[in-house]
Amino acid sequence: MSKPLVTPRTLKGFRDYLPEAMLAREGLIDTARRVYRSYGYAPIDTPALEYLEVLRGKGSDETDKQLYAFQDNGGRDVGLRFDLTVPLARFAAEHTGELGLPFKRYHIASVWRGENTQRGRYREFMQCDFDTIGAVGPASDIETLLVTSDLFAAIGFDAVTIRINHRGVLGGMLEAIGLAEQATSVLRALDKLAKIGPEKVRAEIEQAAGATATQSAKIVALAGVSGDTYTVLQKLEAMVAGPAGKSEAGAAGVARLRDVLDGVAAAGVPPGRIKIDPSIARGLDYYTGLVFETTLDALPGIGSVASGGRYDNLAALFTKQELPGIGGSLGLDRLLAAMEELKMLPATRTPAPVFMPLFADECLAGVLKLAAELRSAGIGVEVYSEPKKLSKQLQYADKKGFRVAVIAGQDELAKGEAQVKDLANGQSVTASAAGLLDEVRRVLDGQE
Amino acid sequence: MSKPLVTPRTLKGFRDYLPEAMLAREGLIDTARRVYRSYGYAPIDTPALEYLEVLRGKGSDETDKQLYAFQDNGGRDVGLRFDLTVPLARFAAEHTGELGLPFKRYHIASVWRGENTQRGRYREFMQCDFDTIGAVGPASDIETLLVTSDLFAAIGFDAVTIRINHRGVLGGMLEAIGLAEQATSVLRALDKLAKIGPEKVRAEIEQAAGATATQSAKIVALAGVSGDTYTVLQKLEAMVAGPAGKSEAGAAGVARLRDVLDGVAAAGVPPGRIKIDPSIARGLDYYTGLVFETTLDALPGIGSVASGGRYDNLAALFTKQELPGIGGSLGLDRLLAAMEELKMLPATRTPAPVFMPLFADECLAGVLKLAAELRSAGIGVEVYSEPKKLSKQLQYADKKGFRVAVIAGQDELAKGEAQVKDLANGQSVTASAAGLLDEVRRVLDGQE
Repeated sequence: MSKPLVTPRTLKGFRDYLPEAMLAREGLIDTARRVYRSYGYAPIDTPALEYLEVLRGKGSDETDKQLYAFQDNGGRDVGLRFDLTVPLARFAAEHTGELGLPFKRYHIASVWRGENTQRGRYREFMQCDFDTIGAVGPASDIETLLVTSDLFAAIGFDAVTIRINHRGVLGGMLEAIGLAEQATSVLRALDKLAKIGPEKVRAEIEQAAGATATQSAKIVALAGVSGDTYTVLQKLEAMVAGPAGKSEAGAAGVARLRDVLDGVAAAGVPPGRIKIDPSIARGLDYYTGLVFETTLDALPGIGSVASGGRYDNLAALFTKQELPGIGGSLGLDRLLAAMEELKMLPATRTPAPVFMPLFADECLAGVLKLAAELRSAGIGVEVYSEPKKLSKQLQYADKKGFRVAVIAGQDELAKGEAQVKDLANGQSVTASAAGLLDEVRRVLDGQE
Repeated sequence: MSKPLVTPRTLKGFRDYLPEAMLAREGLIDTARRVYRSYGYAPIDTPALEYLEVLRGKGSDETDKQLYAFQDNGGRDVGLRFDLTVPLARFAAEHTGELGLPFKRYHIASVWRGENTQRGRYREFMQCDFDTIGAVGPASDIETLLVTSDLFAAIGFDAVTIRINHRGVLGGMLEAIGLAEQATSVLRALDKLAKIGPEKVRAEIEQAAGATATQSAKIVALAGVSGDTYTVLQKLEAMVAGPAGKSEAGAAGVARLRDVLDGVAAAGVPPGRIKIDPSIARGLDYYTGLVFETTLDALPGIGSVASGGRYDNLAALFTKQELPGIGGSLGLDRLLAAMEELKMLPATRTPAPVFMPLFADECLAGVLKLAAELRSAGIGVEVYSEPKKLSKQLQYADKKGFRVAVIAGQDELAKGEAQVKDLANGQSVTASAAGLLDEVRRVLDGQE
């Protein structure tokens, strides 16, 4: 008696990646790795599963609720990582003795959150992080922005805007106007600026932080400072020197922003790509210095596609050693969605550009020989797996998006020839075996 | 009151990958992907978590016992995938309508098994599979072996031996000598040949399969057939034509082996790299045609580093559609262990070859500019993150394994120069800013 069939389906909230989507993802991940590596960030990996105590209470109440937690077969309480930052903290606390500081790593891996699956959000997604641990100077701040800028240029975006801010600037101003203790509730209100507008934010600041109308006006004015970069710096400098005296932290924050802007300019980042935006806060507790967000000029509405910032102490929950650092993260899924919308993704389902049909098993040896020659010149070739009608095979090639068909039946093979067909325009040329590589290259180069 | 510290530790049976190990892994994975792609295999990915009913009962009793199974927050019974073959079966049953056949995919991803952690085995490891689904002819058998052969050449192994067999050969012989019904117990005994020797295997065959001494002798003789490839084929042909009449399946198996050997020779695989070994069985139930294993000639004792075979029906548990195919898998961890033993892994902890120390924050702009120029020429450069004593920075560079240091302090920058230091031999040359790239290239090229 045969078993009843199991319905083939992916788990709710999860998805398969078919070749077309996966080719785009692999391309993007490759680019990110290449750029990270070009600055000396080295890859690491950590287990998908961690002891639950490593994960629980390390993110927010929300991440705790969304944790995939269970007991393993040995009765240990374990969980699937929900980000790559908590594992990095655990990793750094465990290994920096061996690795030394500064330590620069990238980590590109899946994370899991039992989120509400509405709005196209998935419970498994990939994070693409880079961090420098053990460095406090402007060099690592600057480098983090250079990586981000290079990354988008390498992906193919000429026009992105990286908005930067420094947590010391707002903190310094609050200090200067005597509201330092209320920083958390002020930040929480300010985070809603884009959504609810300045009037409602001021009302919330006055109510939640017990601020006066003058104080709330100053705070909202700070977040709204704009203009030419060096003008903004001057305005911010003035604002952190309030009636209660100049704030050291605020002045230091503005000075760091100035260093950072000088540094990225020296390294050749085009003017205007990196802008100060005093409204950027990026969450409440974690970041302590530079923070940044990145938007695509062609599609700003989808939000930030790369962001990050500086922290004073990565692994306070695991070690007494202070581990300051700075990191950034590429928003892979959001960026892929944007690239699809902007039609920047090639419509191909094959990683090999050349297709060779198979007319009969008798042709196989000759076809395999030609295919091997093209491959040894670095050109990917798919040979169709079964002898079938040519029209059917070319239909397959068309559906997959091959660029070139190299057609060699018994007649061609006997004559030492092959037809090279440009699948974009349908034109065919007959090539000798010796001239095949050049002819295929000619068609492939023609498309670029 | 601060929380007590959580001990930073990896879960029992799991491990972190530090940069040195991860650089080697990424290199190997890149090579595998490049070779798979060059034959038109396209990447896919599937979720780490599947419905438990998709996973349970799909491997062996052992994989069932080792499953990481639990209930998710929505009360669904789920499990972590224990291989990439069951997810491929589920995937193929779900998507081949959309993708069409033949379908060639590779899948490189982590799997989880709650195995006994003795003997250096881990509970999370990576599989590196490629399969062609929907093809039954010799072309896909041949291609699977070509991929395997190319893969090891691309990794840097000139000398590997791929041992092939066909499940029809032994089956055919059993048919020919009247033992077809006892195939499973015969295979189980034969699998122990290398371990317990021919005498004990014969005894087990006689006892478990009720075979006569003549029959067990023939079976063990078949497994021991050796010699020049085409001689082996002739011997096998004779052996599958037994006293009970010639076996069709056996003859077809031998004929397929002949086609496969002709094909790989036509595609340029060096003679002797692929050998027939009638003792290779590769498990009991799954494979139905060609099977293969690969050993490193320099280190045969570590066992097979790439293996696979042909199956009649991938997804019988999910769909009534028959999905025949053939696939192979690279044994990543075993191969990395071998490469370490053979000293084939570069001792580096940095993906960037060039190191630039930082003498003072005042030098930063000049150093960043030089680093950006080298990077735009495709050369990775790590700039040290803080101004520190040069000796300390060079110690860091040495520990990481950089190849070149480009040293530019205030004096050099003022003169538009930099020192280029070959870290392998300690020799330094002064280069002008304009000549820096050539000088760095000269040192980097010198090492190859």
